[in-house]
Amino acid sequence: MARVVVDVMLKPEILDPQGQAVQRALPRLGFDGIADVRQGKRFELEVDGPVDEAALARIHEMAETFLANTVIEDFVVRVDEESAAGKAGAK
Amino acid sequence: MARVVVDVMLKPEILDPQGQAVQRALPRLGFDGIADVRQGKRFELEVDGPVDEAALARIHEMAETFLANTVIEDFVVRVDEESAAGKAGAK
Repeated sequence: MARVVVDVMLKPEILDPQGQAVQRALPRLGFDGIADVRQGKRFELEVDGPVDEAALARIHEMAETFLANTVIEDFVVRVDEESAAGKAGAK
Repeated sequence: MARVVVDVMLKPEILDPQGQAVQRALPRLGFDGIADVRQGKRFELEVDGPVDEAALARIHEMAETFLANTVIEDFVVRVDEESAAGKAGAK
């Protein structure tokens, strides 16, 4: 079974209060040198059958209509290379 | 400025009600063939200065102590190759 990852992040021009809260807390906790933090969502989908172009197109549509709010969010669909490598033998 | 991504996901043995809700909704919405969905968090950190081994070690510690709850969550730290490739010229 193949794994497809959908990363959903707020668009760069949209304010990200969650990320800001993390970024401001870091120096207090002793971690310097982080200029900006953005927080988003990661979906891991276990896909039945082959992850061919048709399957990826369907997942793209699913992400666009359902997983992301494309007014304020961008998303990226990609096949998880680790799971692919794992299937090839290493894991 | 380099980007480091921290992916935080619930451990496989921990119930993920958010992911389950998504997975159950998909067939109703006309998307079949997705056996499982897990939902997690993605942090994008903009790092000042070079992302060398010391910086990655610090970010690893930060993720362990602050971004993830390691009792119930796993995390992965990785340098965003796209931002690296973009800096090299393509973007």
